[in-house]
Amino acid sequence: MFNQVTIIGVGLIGGSLGLALKKKKVVKSVVGYGRRRGALNKAVSIQAIDRYCLTLPKAIKDADLVCLTTPVGTFESLCRIMAPHLKEGAIVTDAGSVKGALVKTLTNLMPEHASFVGGHPIAGREKSGVMAATGTLYKGCRTILTPIPETNRDALKKVKALWEAVGANVFELDPFDHDRILSFVSHLPHVVAYALMEMLTHPRIAPLNPVEYSAGGLRDFTRIAASSPEMWRDIFLANKDAVVEGIDIYQETLEKIKKKILINDGAGLIEIFNRANDIREQAIR
Amino acid sequence: MFNQVTIIGVGLIGGSLGLALKKKKVVKSVVGYGRRRGALNKAVSIQAIDRYCLTLPKAIKDADLVCLTTPVGTFESLCRIMAPHLKEGAIVTDAGSVKGALVKTLTNLMPEHASFVGGHPIAGREKSGVMAATGTLYKGCRTILTPIPETNRDALKKVKALWEAVGANVFELDPFDHDRILSFVSHLPHVVAYALMEMLTHPRIAPLNPVEYSAGGLRDFTRIAASSPEMWRDIFLANKDAVVEGIDIYQETLEKIKKKILINDGAGLIEIFNRANDIREQAIR
Repeated sequence: MFNQVTIIGVGLIGGSLGLALKKKKVVKSVVGYGRRRGALNKAVSIQAIDRYCLTLPKAIKDADLVCLTTPVGTFESLCRIMAPHLKEGAIVTDAGSVKGALVKTLTNLMPEHASFVGGHPIAGREKSGVMAATGTLYKGCRTILTPIPETNRDALKKVKALWEAVGANVFELDPFDHDRILSFVSHLPHVVAYALMEMLTHPRIAPLNPVEYSAGGLRDFTRIAASSPEMWRDIFLANKDAVVEGIDIYQETLEKIKKKILINDGAGLIEIFNRANDIREQAIR
Repeated sequence: MFNQVTIIGVGLIGGSLGLALKKKKVVKSVVGYGRRRGALNKAVSIQAIDRYCLTLPKAIKDADLVCLTTPVGTFESLCRIMAPHLKEGAIVTDAGSVKGALVKTLTNLMPEHASFVGGHPIAGREKSGVMAATGTLYKGCRTILTPIPETNRDALKKVKALWEAVGANVFELDPFDHDRILSFVSHLPHVVAYALMEMLTHPRIAPLNPVEYSAGGLRDFTRIAASSPEMWRDIFLANKDAVVEGIDIYQETLEKIKKKILINDGAGLIEIFNRANDIREQAIR
């Protein structure tokens, strides 16, 4: 499929891609780029990559495909550095969780002879780092590609084939729809969990020491709130419009439930709870 | 400690109490009361109770202690029926998750020679029914007793000793403080999870089919939203004041987070996320 794939940032996501590509034998050589030699040596030792370069132009100059798996905030500057060194027909893609306007920005940064295709494998991230990488992370994983009118159709097909080769179910979405959907199913649950924790520090609540009596309900939320603060700050700010839209609709919904409680509308509450159970069935299917 | 304990409603909570009391040999005889003979026979078969009665006055007339483990909404009428039949020195307690004004109501329903003591073991409830009962459910379980000035101190001591005998850590709280605390750590997390599910049915969101792309964040919430609709309706309505207070403070907190996102206050967000991590440490300790 490709002679050389270069993975930028070899952590859980990049390392798992390397492992899967090598396992499926769809790529001759997987090269890693990163800044920390220690992590890259680990990546070689677990065979997530064949070799690595600490210099970006060198790492990508022979790549047929480059996949960005660093935080979203780094993509633009990485593409600026790579652009003059990409080979004829090279494809750049990414695994970032925010798309929106960035897809057009990165597409426009590509030289005439190379293409950008936005991508996002919705893969679990409870652990991080290359040592948590696994060759089966993308098996059955929903992966969203976000083409825009300027996207090269041939490159899009190839990126789709790449993710399918490692077992992913590939969907296409408009980049802004992608951001709204991810806001609702991933970013907002985190906002909502953080707000629940923060509320416990409110001057009307903290003196009661509620956490001393924490029940299952609260503990389920604390797991979500334990994720990396820096990662979530970046996601909330990069996806600001969709996250704020989500918070507004969420507030409206909460107000509706509050009113039903205030007027003792038990039947209305049951309807909402039953709909929630339906959504659960759909989500865990 | 007691000759006879009668458990009203032998499900997960009542059955586990019976199993633990019999295991610890602190009670000579455990009697069950319920309406479904099938469930009561199961309770006898797993030795959660020694025997059962299908008639309430008969089930409690020789009891030194009666524990109500049916839904909170049934307590008042059960106490009215039991009151004339309670023996000299009998103690009635409960395992309900809403207290507030109900404690005084039930205390006042007791005859001169019997006492009521409010209680609430904060025990896991992922499964329900007597077949899910276990003799170790209350080991290390935080159990809150909610005495009021009218509460008989000797009865309070005995109920405390009962829960300690089955391994619980017993705390005392004002009934209204109990309801506020439980609202914040248990009831509100459920409101918040239900609102997140309900929001996905909003006309601006549903057409995007977000659930098709559900990520870990959403799935963690769906588990919470899968609990019994009827149970949560009763809890929200019985604890209305504290739940609505919680929703109001929650909305205020969410608004604060939204503002920080809108003005790109990354440092402010990190502060909130770090506080959430601290609360997590405290909650899972």
